[in-house]
Order: sequence, then structure tokens, then C-alpha cells
Amino acid sequence: MYSRSKLIEEITKKKSFLCVGLDTDITKIPKHLLSEPDPVFAFNKAIIDATSPLCVAYKINTAFFEADGAKGWESMQKTFDYIPKDCLSIADAKRGDIGNTSHQYAKAFFETLNADSITLAPYMGNDSIAPFFKYPGKWGIVLALTSNPGSADYEQQKIGDKFLFELVLENTCEIGSEENLMFVVGATKPQEFNIIRKHAPNHFLLVPGVGAQGGSLSDVVKYGRIKDIGLLINASRSIIYASTGYDFADFAALEARKIQEEMATYL
Amino acid sequence: MYSRSKLIEEITKKKSFLCVGLDTDITKIPKHLLSEPDPVFAFNKAIIDATSPLCVAYKINTAFFEADGAKGWESMQKTFDYIPKDCLSIADAKRGDIGNTSHQYAKAFFETLNADSITLAPYMGNDSIAPFFKYPGKWGIVLALTSNPGSADYEQQKIGDKFLFELVLENTCEIGSEENLMFVVGATKPQEFNIIRKHAPNHFLLVPGVGAQGGSLSDVVKYGRIKDIGLLINASRSIIYASTGYDFADFAALEARKIQEEMATYL
Repeated sequence: MYSRSKLIEEITKKKSFLCVGLDTDITKIPKHLLSEPDPVFAFNKAIIDATSPLCVAYKINTAFFEADGAKGWESMQKTFDYIPKDCLSIADAKRGDIGNTSHQYAKAFFETLNADSITLAPYMGNDSIAPFFKYPGKWGIVLALTSNPGSADYEQQKIGDKFLFELVLENTCEIGSEENLMFVVGATKPQEFNIIRKHAPNHFLLVPGVGAQGGSLSDVVKYGRIKDIGLLINASRSIIYASTGYDFADFAALEARKIQEEMATYL
Repeated sequence: MYSRSKLIEEITKKKSFLCVGLDTDITKIPKHLLSEPDPVFAFNKAIIDATSPLCVAYKINTAFFEADGAKGWESMQKTFDYIPKDCLSIADAKRGDIGNTSHQYAKAFFETLNADSITLAPYMGNDSIAPFFKYPGKWGIVLALTSNPGSADYEQQKIGDKFLFELVLENTCEIGSEENLMFVVGATKPQEFNIIRKHAPNHFLLVPGVGAQGGSLSDVVKYGRIKDIGLLINASRSIIYASTGYDFADFAALEARKIQEEMATYL
């Protein structure tokens, strides 16, 4: 259970709409952690301890945990269990399948892992993501316009007079509301946000690509914000890998604080 | 490592192009298995033992295993390890993300689980699925036209004079070849197969929806086959849940044999 009003309350309290992305790669974490029984969880725990006063959400990138198989899923479960209740937990899993199967994914992420939200891939259409919106207090975060070059291949193609990502916004709003639906939007341009806000005027947007992927925080806020801010801005590598030494958590907090302080000026 | 020539050789030898789908739901397996240390694996093992002479591929639906968390991944790992080397193993995972993340998914499925192939969701564009085609002897199976009603939402929409699924076929053929790329195609109509074979004349197609989902085997073969057959036809629930008694594996084999015998008449 994580309501929209709670999210807005936390944003106001922490003066932050930062989401910290846990793309935890065992080959990139500080070497001294490798002697821990679960190095990946030890890393995540230290990052969460250091950054949780500065952010309102954590995004767990499932791929990095699956790469380690069942052991990775254990680290992922422990990480979800450890995320403080004042922060929204996001499973960045980009799932979506026929209803029968999506129901199982919803069970995996909303029941077993107990994530507050999951990212969803809409290619197969509304019925492939609908099962995720049946869980009270849980969120579906649907891919609309992503920040990678490949977004030009389909997302930015026109179907009639609308972009594919626009059609996704429109259709998905039929199965979710601003209380349980967000969109992944890697936008930075004003004309993109105009289209997005036309279809999702009050929805929160999860914006990746600030930091290592090079997006500009001020542009995103300038063009994408609404009254209740309506933005969660993610930074992963620039925060979690700010240092590879014993001081990694301090440096992560320092990087998170830089972003939080800039965010505070917009609130 | 599972080559196209090996697949064709097995199809010829077994007179079958059947793929058995392991959508193993612990609430649906025979009750007597629940006392096993790993009921899901015990079920899969018995199904594989009974059906492997009759099929050339197994499709593991990852959602059903993830629903049980780390324990489910252990059952999934054991299942992949148990699939006989003469059968292609398919991770039906529908992954796809930015390059950095897709690389981790490729590691999860091609290295850790050691699957021969994985299904991929193309929404984010070619760069989001390209990392999967860097593994020699491994296959990417890309969603093109699926069989669910939601395929009308985007897949069957026109971009210029082409359907979205057609553009997916066209673009994806730039990063994979008939040696490492298949498509998921829930088609049954001749005009759909005309479009598909125009862009993927020699590619294998993974066709779901025969059996519980109601597709017709004879129609698929009639319109979709090529010289080397070029089809893997999946049946899941109609085979694996043919009986819920002690005889479940025998009934699974019986159902698989019915399909295999029909397939033999087409070869």
C-alpha cells in the first residue's frame, strides 16, 4: 500500500522527488564487500541507509538480480524487505504478457516480493497489463516514451495522427488512474511533455536518464511538472557508484544530496 | 548451443515440431506431488520424461516460477538443467530494456540459466533487444503478432503502410538472422502469414495458442510452413494439465502424441 497522497506528503517533507536506482552489479561494487555473505544486499543496505532521507523512492532493476539466479532473487527479496516504508518501492521489471501469465507476474512482484509498484511493457496491449491494476494500493508504471535511441523505432512512430507512445498513454488511462498508474517517460523536450501532459495531466511520471544517462533535471522540471510536482526522477549509476572505496555510501549520499538540493529549489 | 540445422534434424527425426509449454502452477499440479521437496520440479521432470520423445522444444514460462520467488528460480534452474540436449529450451520471459540492462538479462538467461533461447518484447526498439543476439548459438525470439485480443491495440495498428508487427519483423531482421532469430506469431489467417513470410521467409516462428488458447494446427501449418517447416507450435495447458491424477504424465504424453501424430502427417 502506497497512496498518491502519501507520495506527495513525502515529497513535501523530504523536499525531494528523487528515486534512487539500484542497478547493483556485483562487478562494480566496492571490493571489500565481496567477503560479506550477501555482497549485493550489503551494498544495497548501505546505499539505502545513506540515501533514504534524501529520496522518496527506490527502483530495483530486476535484471541485475536475475543475472545471479536464485541467489540474486534472495538478494532482491531482502532489498525489497529493507526499503523503508516512507519510500515507494519500484520493481523495474518491464513485464507484460497474456492475462494468465501477467497474473503470475503480478503475484511475483506484488505478493511474493511485496513491491509497491512495477514497470510494465505495453507491446501486447491493454489486456496484457490490466492484471497489475487489480491490486489495491499497488502501482503499474507503464513504458511510454523511453530515453534510449531505439525509442525512435516504434514509440515515436505515428499511428494516424498520434505517436505510438501517445496511444499507449491514451489506452492505458482506460485501465488505471492517477492513483495507481504512472508512466515511464524519458522526455526532455517541451513538445514531448506537452503531448504527455495532454493525456496524463495528473499522473506521476517516472523519469529515467538523469545522471549517467545525461538528462537535465531543470528541463524535466520546467516542462514536466504539475501542481503536485507529478515527477519521480531517477538516478542510478551516478549515485550508487559515486565511489568504489570504503566511503561509497557517503559519496552516494553526497551525490543524492546534490540532486535533492536542486529539487528543493523547485518545490 | 542449439543450431538451426540441429532443430531441423530433430524435427525430421521425431516427426514433430511441437513445443511443450511449462506454465507450471503449483495450485494446478496433482496433489500427491505436494509432498515432494520441490513439487514444481517433480512435476516438470515427470512431464519432460513423458513427452521428450514427442516434442523438439520446451518453453518455460518464467512468470510461473517467479511467482514463488527465489525458490521458484531454483525450480526453474533445475528444469532448464533437466531439459534433454536434443530439445531446444526456451525461456518465455519477454524481456527487453536499455542496453546496459538487457545485457544483464542476457547474462541471467543465457549464462546463469543456460537457456538456448529467450522471448523478447520489442517496444523499446532494436537497441533494447540487440544484446541478446551477441551470444553465439543462442536465440532471441521476438514478439511480433501475438494471439491475445490486445494485439489489436498496437501490434495491428498501421504505421505508414505497415502494421507495427510488420515493422518489428523488418527492423529485427537487421540484428538477427534465421540462425539466431525467431518470431512469436499468434497468427492463424492466411493474410497474416503472407505478411510475416514476406519479411521472415526462412525464420522459425514460435506459434502459441494451439490447445487451450484455441488455435488450429492445420491452419497454422497450411499458411505458415516453409520448406524446413519453420514452425514451432506450442501447447501448454492442454498437455501438462491433461489429468490431475497420479497418471498425469501418461495423459500429458497422450495429448502430446495426438498433436505429434497430426504433425507427422504434415512432414
